[in-house]
Amino acid sequence: MKKLINDPEDVLSEFMRGFSIAHKDIVEYKTDPVHFHRAGGAVQGKTGLVSGGGSGHEPLGGGYVGAGMLDAVAPGAFFSSPTPDQILAATEAANGGAGVLHLVLNYTGDILNFEMAAELAAAEDIEVATVVIDDDVAVENSTWTAGRRGVAGAIAAMKMTGAATDLGYDLAKTAEVCTKINDSMGTMGLALTACTVPTAGKPSFDLGPDEIELGIGVHGEPGVKRVPMMQVDEIVDVLVDAVVKDLKFERGENVLLYINGLGATPLSEQYIMYNHAWDKLDALGVNVTRSQVGNYFTSLEMAGASVTIMRLDEELTKLYDAPVHTAGWRKGV
Amino acid sequence: MKKLINDPEDVLSEFMRGFSIAHKDIVEYKTDPVHFHRAGGAVQGKTGLVSGGGSGHEPLGGGYVGAGMLDAVAPGAFFSSPTPDQILAATEAANGGAGVLHLVLNYTGDILNFEMAAELAAAEDIEVATVVIDDDVAVENSTWTAGRRGVAGAIAAMKMTGAATDLGYDLAKTAEVCTKINDSMGTMGLALTACTVPTAGKPSFDLGPDEIELGIGVHGEPGVKRVPMMQVDEIVDVLVDAVVKDLKFERGENVLLYINGLGATPLSEQYIMYNHAWDKLDALGVNVTRSQVGNYFTSLEMAGASVTIMRLDEELTKLYDAPVHTAGWRKGV
Repeated sequence: MKKLINDPEDVLSEFMRGFSIAHKDIVEYKTDPVHFHRAGGAVQGKTGLVSGGGSGHEPLGGGYVGAGMLDAVAPGAFFSSPTPDQILAATEAANGGAGVLHLVLNYTGDILNFEMAAELAAAEDIEVATVVIDDDVAVENSTWTAGRRGVAGAIAAMKMTGAATDLGYDLAKTAEVCTKINDSMGTMGLALTACTVPTAGKPSFDLGPDEIELGIGVHGEPGVKRVPMMQVDEIVDVLVDAVVKDLKFERGENVLLYINGLGATPLSEQYIMYNHAWDKLDALGVNVTRSQVGNYFTSLEMAGASVTIMRLDEELTKLYDAPVHTAGWRKGV
Repeated sequence: MKKLINDPEDVLSEFMRGFSIAHKDIVEYKTDPVHFHRAGGAVQGKTGLVSGGGSGHEPLGGGYVGAGMLDAVAPGAFFSSPTPDQILAATEAANGGAGVLHLVLNYTGDILNFEMAAELAAAEDIEVATVVIDDDVAVENSTWTAGRRGVAGAIAAMKMTGAATDLGYDLAKTAEVCTKINDSMGTMGLALTACTVPTAGKPSFDLGPDEIELGIGVHGEPGVKRVPMMQVDEIVDVLVDAVVKDLKFERGENVLLYINGLGATPLSEQYIMYNHAWDKLDALGVNVTRSQVGNYFTSLEMAGASVTIMRLDEELTKLYDAPVHTAGWRKGV
């Protein structure tokens, strides 16, 4: 295992300390229990937005806390759910008196711990609503999931839902638009290689030198099938067809086309995927009005990528276009 | 070679077409000869800023064209210099009547072709000045370089020099501040693995399973030494000490601390490097007033990273903070 680390047990604390120093104008890092919240604390009167999940998906985590996106986040250990006390602390930090939305990616451990944290918050008179993101159209149930997994589309959901809270949506309306965002999108991905969690010290799964896995989960959960390496246009055909079939896009609709890299896949390859996905949507008469390409939801140094397509109406376009200022996603006015 | 590509010969054209569709609000893509310029063309009366170099370092290339950064760029084939006619076309596209600065990374082929393009531009009455970026403190001469190589610091130089042109600096003042930026910084990096250029089909060099190379160039040019894998703090000691020794930072000075990932190195590892580099500068009494961590200058899927430290005075801080809107570097006002 060649990694730029010291003791594997110190990876998370050293990375998070470095992150918090580098971005101290945006986020504040708390260690007991571990969570990040916006520098300056909760915005009074604004609906709070909290997410969380395992580490190893950076910039997901502290990288998406800031104006126009999350108020606080609870990052667990690598590929492990955050604990209820972490989520509670993040919820308290995000609470500006107008309630807090929990945006939860659909993994069983995360669901259970967010539920417990919501009960603890209720006991403190913090109103909590929950929306579960399950954008992965590849498989119905998976290793750590009942129902569909929450994957790369969750990042767009965090950005757009955060914009809604900044625009003054109350808790009920925020939960409603977050659900609408989740219902408007689908994602499917593939991996070429596994990754190695530092504390595990060995690859999370095995893939042959000429083998890829379609529909794989971001932690290496089994996908749809393992196939010999093929040309990327054929891969994109499988991914886009699955999402289009699920979302039933119609001629004339506007969409976001979003390619997410898992870590080790060069940007040039991600744009080649975009290129063919765009042609396919164009052939269907679907208009790509917003585009996003890059490493937004990674799995350490895994090679692979996913395609997300989201139906955009006027409201969702406005939320996508709103300013955002986080370490992982920045955009001016 | 598992890569998300079709025919290796089509990688550049497919990626660049995808890129140009995804970012058509920011850049325009021309194919004869290949170059990118700002959507809307040259800004009249503004000093133009042009760079170029081999592809494979994305988002470098079209990703840094846009408001607050480059006016145009000439991307060569993978790890190959752009041709003089590409550079000339980019120069013409960037010319708003106030002259054009060529920001050239120090590789012999690039230097020669930019010189030839500058002569061709002069014949068209476009005034051209040239600044060569050579921030790599690792080695004095290298495989494709007389003198020091231009590496990750070049991206900061592009951003800050672009800000200067947007602020109204004339050609002479722009060249002067670009030289000052280059003189104010140093970079040193390392690699854990090689990368594979699609058209070559095999790794660009060999590194053993427990071996790393310190001071390596972004194309795999020999560095200072190959050593067994060690803890990252020891690696950062070597890199930071080399840059500090070269730049002679003094107690009380303000600096930018910038960690660049080469492609496959997770963000968490880059922040661990930042964490220790920050502690070292702090111990020297040097103030890190600006921070940057991420994959700004990659080498396809190479694993590795570099540390850049730049002395910041009031002028350079202002240029670093100015708004920028490109595909690869965005920041609001």
